[in-house]
Amino acid sequence: MGTTEDAERVVRDLCDGFAKHDAGALRQYFTDDVVYHNIPMDPAVGVEETIAFIEGFFAMCDGMVIETLHLAVRDNVVLTERVDTFTVGELVADLPVMGTFEIRDGKISAWRDYFDLTQITNMLSGGS
Amino acid sequence: MGTTEDAERVVRDLCDGFAKHDAGALRQYFTDDVVYHNIPMDPAVGVEETIAFIEGFFAMCDGMVIETLHLAVRDNVVLTERVDTFTVGELVADLPVMGTFEIRDGKISAWRDYFDLTQITNMLSGGS
Repeated sequence: MGTTEDAERVVRDLCDGFAKHDAGALRQYFTDDVVYHNIPMDPAVGVEETIAFIEGFFAMCDGMVIETLHLAVRDNVVLTERVDTFTVGELVADLPVMGTFEIRDGKISAWRDYFDLTQITNMLSGGS
Repeated sequence: MGTTEDAERVVRDLCDGFAKHDAGALRQYFTDDVVYHNIPMDPAVGVEETIAFIEGFFAMCDGMVIETLHLAVRDNVVLTERVDTFTVGELVADLPVMGTFEIRDGKISAWRDYFDLTQITNMLSGGS
């Protein structure tokens, strides 16, 4: 463990895992003390809060798929540019996102996502 | 030209250049057809619109300093996690940002910044 390939692998596995819509199945990718911070919101601290937060996402949508446009790794840090697509009934909302992942011992110990909160709020309420 | 080191260099030079508060001096880092997209806003297309956009930033603040927390390169794409600090009189606003830069022939041909528009708007209006 500890190579840049391992770091990329755990991030891609996590992102791919979102399509399964099972928050508990994602627990394996996080350290116990992970901090998951959607930057415009308060951070989730620890794996329990993180999984609960993701369960919240899954509860408000029928599907969530993460597409990675660009990914680059330096040391233990993985930077991503993505489109996170939320499906709610007939509504499909594509959210442009960038995210930073810090990796420790093959698991994600920090995850910070940057996006415009108003954009996704408007999209999910059926606005532009 | 064309190495990952060159790609990193032009991005770091651009970011460092913001501290000089001279939009025209940043022109050298962009291709003529650069697209500069602050994701929550409309994109600036071409180097003229891009420089005009940056002049707009400089007009609304006394200083703007870009600190790069993390940077990683893959092929011709540079991904960054940053804090962009705007100073307006006594007000100092730290904006968390991630940005993607695409490099062509040693210059930036695309720049996409991801941040929460409400956060910076509130900070610059003296709110939280």
